[in-house]
Amino acid sequence: MIGPKHDGGWSTLASTYLFESKWYNLRQDQVRLPSGDDITYTLVEHPGFVVVVPLTSDGYVILERIYRYTVQRTVIECPAGALDGESPIDAAKRELLEETGFEAGDLASIAHFFGSTGISDEEFHIVVATDLRDTGRTDREATEQMEIIRMPLDEAAELARSGAIADAPSALAILLAHDRR
Amino acid sequence: MIGPKHDGGWSTLASTYLFESKWYNLRQDQVRLPSGDDITYTLVEHPGFVVVVPLTSDGYVILERIYRYTVQRTVIECPAGALDGESPIDAAKRELLEETGFEAGDLASIAHFFGSTGISDEEFHIVVATDLRDTGRTDREATEQMEIIRMPLDEAAELARSGAIADAPSALAILLAHDRR
Repeated sequence: MIGPKHDGGWSTLASTYLFESKWYNLRQDQVRLPSGDDITYTLVEHPGFVVVVPLTSDGYVILERIYRYTVQRTVIECPAGALDGESPIDAAKRELLEETGFEAGDLASIAHFFGSTGISDEEFHIVVATDLRDTGRTDREATEQMEIIRMPLDEAAELARSGAIADAPSALAILLAHDRR
Repeated sequence: MIGPKHDGGWSTLASTYLFESKWYNLRQDQVRLPSGDDITYTLVEHPGFVVVVPLTSDGYVILERIYRYTVQRTVIECPAGALDGESPIDAAKRELLEETGFEAGDLASIAHFFGSTGISDEEFHIVVATDLRDTGRTDREATEQMEIIRMPLDEAAELARSGAIADAPSALAILLAHDRR
């Protein structure tokens, strides 16, 4: 259980947006700390996202080999995407279908985490998807340059533990899904 | 193994900084995709950070209960901090001492991950610290509003698996350290 929201004795004196987009905003706050010191705190406001672990009935996981411009590398990740005003389960269902073409008969949210508490409010939900059916159709965005791969969940967990699955939310999602099998 | 850096066929046509600070920058790029489409991609440039798992000889881990303004909650995290032009091991040694007062006789970097590949280049290194000695002195920043707690590593792994340790890098670090014991 994550504890309740509270202000920790920090007072927000003023807020300005330095950047706004449909993906995230950058907000700059003037803040008075409990010590009485005034500071500037600049943070990312993010709508949150889902990380999907799609498991086949024969013990495989469906993953993506995707090019990430941010880190200038092709990395292995779980299907994932931002919440678009919908529940984590609905977002997981939608993203899985759009990115991989798989429909899931069953989806379960197993845990949620904050991604980068020093600079961002981003939170992600880990959703395990089972009872999969391949529709053979995807609907990707232009930036989603990927191929779909499948591997035994045991092997994916090993790659997550070593850092070879280098995206932290994906690695954590795979390890938690693996622990529950 | 993470693959090598490459451009994926994406061409950066122009770059502008929307925000710069000692913690991170926000960079906005005009990019031509392999499809020929031109897009705007805005990303966080981060210096990287370390997440430290300090383990005592009797099976306990030293953690922090810290207020995070970004998520307006007090959360349990590993000692952590940004790289300040130093190696991950040196940063881990410094952050551990500053935040908790513990000196580590042995530090080992066990894996590294990207934190949020959709919007940021941030990368973190997981460092396990052992042979601990409590100096009784800390040197925290004004925003580091925390208390130090210790709990059995087994219990911390359970809290990480459930999401009760809600910071994803900390949860992943604890699970990997636990798997290695």
